[in-house]
Amino acid sequence: MNTNAHWLAKVITELGGFVKRCTVVRDNVDDISSAIEESMERGTNWLIISGGLGPTYDDKTLQGVAKALNRELVVDAYALKIVEKKYESMAHHGMIKTADLTPARLKMAKLPKGSKALPNPIGTAPGVMIDEGDRKIVCLPGVPREMEGIFKESIVPMIKNVIKNFYHEESIHTTGIVESDLAPLIDKALANNPFVYIKSHPKGHGEGISKIEIQVTAMAKEPSIAKKRVKDALKQLKFMIIEHGGIIEKESMK
Amino acid sequence: MNTNAHWLAKVITELGGFVKRCTVVRDNVDDISSAIEESMERGTNWLIISGGLGPTYDDKTLQGVAKALNRELVVDAYALKIVEKKYESMAHHGMIKTADLTPARLKMAKLPKGSKALPNPIGTAPGVMIDEGDRKIVCLPGVPREMEGIFKESIVPMIKNVIKNFYHEESIHTTGIVESDLAPLIDKALANNPFVYIKSHPKGHGEGISKIEIQVTAMAKEPSIAKKRVKDALKQLKFMIIEHGGIIEKESMK
Repeated sequence: MNTNAHWLAKVITELGGFVKRCTVVRDNVDDISSAIEESMERGTNWLIISGGLGPTYDDKTLQGVAKALNRELVVDAYALKIVEKKYESMAHHGMIKTADLTPARLKMAKLPKGSKALPNPIGTAPGVMIDEGDRKIVCLPGVPREMEGIFKESIVPMIKNVIKNFYHEESIHTTGIVESDLAPLIDKALANNPFVYIKSHPKGHGEGISKIEIQVTAMAKEPSIAKKRVKDALKQLKFMIIEHGGIIEKESMK
Repeated sequence: MNTNAHWLAKVITELGGFVKRCTVVRDNVDDISSAIEESMERGTNWLIISGGLGPTYDDKTLQGVAKALNRELVVDAYALKIVEKKYESMAHHGMIKTADLTPARLKMAKLPKGSKALPNPIGTAPGVMIDEGDRKIVCLPGVPREMEGIFKESIVPMIKNVIKNFYHEESIHTTGIVESDLAPLIDKALANNPFVYIKSHPKGHGEGISKIEIQVTAMAKEPSIAKKRVKDALKQLKFMIIEHGGIIEKESMK
């Protein structure tokens, strides 16, 4: 289950970012490198990769990145320091016999030339930050806690520095109205509120009753404007739903 | 959370299929159509799409497919019958006032020209099957129960008909050995067992103990061969792990 993509998309969206696409490929250098090349060709300005930074043979992300960007893999001094310190600490705590830098351990310090190593507050493999022209490529480990730790510590401050949008989201849960009867009401609410996005998530027909979650989101330059846009659209939508025999069951405000 | 991709990948793999890539795009006709075009260019022979078949304006999958394949959207007689019957039944059960085919309802019967509608045993929107040369494009609803229902009923029999591989998978959970010390053991097991794939999933360092799940998988023309390959590799791997001070905590056999 790809909990990492879900977590990243949620956090980036809530920071005001626009998540354009999510791609999952196999542990294969060619698949990884061509997915990166395709993303660059589409004009992605931030590419966030997770997984494949560890010591085992299936960890091929940095080989894929090096190939896509036509850079060598070289031992990075700061990454080496991070890796060395981790194994010294593990040896000190009796988790491993020696802190020797075996080939599998050294692998985690080999980064595409010109990368910046990002400290891993939880695990061993450092994260990687690459400037490719004016694009950023970020590689994070696949272990969720490590991925989240590096992202929060090193990437969120950078994103906050460049993104000047604010995101707001609210949801309602309705019953008693089927999605096809909701559709023209959403169209009307959207026509009156051009700066929101309204998404309906049918939750099945429990006991012959149609249950739908409706999510209203907006981005704006000011938090109060994003909030007002969502609340205005929701107010109109709720009025129309009730008018058409639907029931508002639950509201999740922020 | 993309539970649909997880479910589809698992079921297709267990059927002996090879899942090459998974892509998630926004509700945008251009994004959908370009993702489909890219997939076709990479030589995908089965493209399975889920989500975006419903009656609301954010349901844009079939527009994206029509654009990518350069086909018109036309009312399909069989799809129309499926949709009509569903709304007649809902009206009969008092869930809706009338079974009238409003534009939002008719939308679900408009398929790319030459498509085959697939009955939806749970919800309203039919699935869609398209032959594009020797490639298959399948569109399924996003509601998990509907997606699974159509897939099991209409697609699994077709896949079983073309795939002649058998998949086998077993996992063990280890403690007392860190991933970097496991790496050379996996390399050795792979060298001796070239027809298996071994993947390690670090599960964190609970109480200073490294916990790792190791998953061994194989494909073969006979189920017994796939099973033997996995069991042989696991046996060697377990021996080496214990020899290096690791502990086998749990085994998940099939």
